[in-house]
Amino acid sequence: MNTEPGNASIPRPIALDRAFASFDALWSPRIVTSVNDYDVRVAKVEGTHVWHVHDDTDEFFLVLGGELHIDLREPAGERRVTLPQGSLFTVPRGIEHRPHAPKGARILLFEPTGTPTVGDRHDEIPDHVDATTGTPIQI
Amino acid sequence: MNTEPGNASIPRPIALDRAFASFDALWSPRIVTSVNDYDVRVAKVEGTHVWHVHDDTDEFFLVLGGELHIDLREPAGERRVTLPQGSLFTVPRGIEHRPHAPKGARILLFEPTGTPTVGDRHDEIPDHVDATTGTPIQI
Repeated sequence: MNTEPGNASIPRPIALDRAFASFDALWSPRIVTSVNDYDVRVAKVEGTHVWHVHDDTDEFFLVLGGELHIDLREPAGERRVTLPQGSLFTVPRGIEHRPHAPKGARILLFEPTGTPTVGDRHDEIPDHVDATTGTPIQI
Repeated sequence: MNTEPGNASIPRPIALDRAFASFDALWSPRIVTSVNDYDVRVAKVEGTHVWHVHDDTDEFFLVLGGELHIDLREPAGERRVTLPQGSLFTVPRGIEHRPHAPKGARILLFEPTGTPTVGDRHDEIPDHVDATTGTPIQI
């Protein structure tokens, strides 16, 4: 949980604009707060992520700016959902998916602390994707 | 999880604008999706909620429109945090708090499914506050 400087026990509000201004890396989520054993992460994204699957957890996406597409490989076949700014979506556990943002997007994620960005199984990780469980934000 | 009409297995994106347009009640959260055993809820708020505490869970607030204040009774004393649009905050478990939005606000909440809006302990509930664990959104 983000806290007042010098006092680890007092949580403080976070302005998303300041959070996004504090980093430039793409596909490299920053942890803005925690809720019990879950993280709230924000990320700047552009281009295509990697096909991956979280076997044991759903993954929540909220698009704060730009437009995000998520390709899904479901039992019924492959489909793409499109999330304009101000849209949200939950990828169910066990569903292989690949986020994609040709023009860039700013997103907020909610998932259990320790969840890797590339899931439990994934295709070869391209250089532009940060395989991480998130980085605490510094603001 | 919100799903395609007629197919309970296919989740679909939710546009926040449509979600907020679907209800008018104040202090009466609507569940827009679920993430494992957590809910994502949205609420329209105006005026003052009730002092209450969640003994066993943190509670996440994201302000999507307007401005929200949260009064907190912490061991060090009472304070108020102010969350302009685009700000987020987590109220730690066990901390008595009271949301307040004199000019109105639209908020998003993350919390475990079944978490009551008035917590585990609370002052007398005013008529304008819906004591609920959330209502599934209908859009």
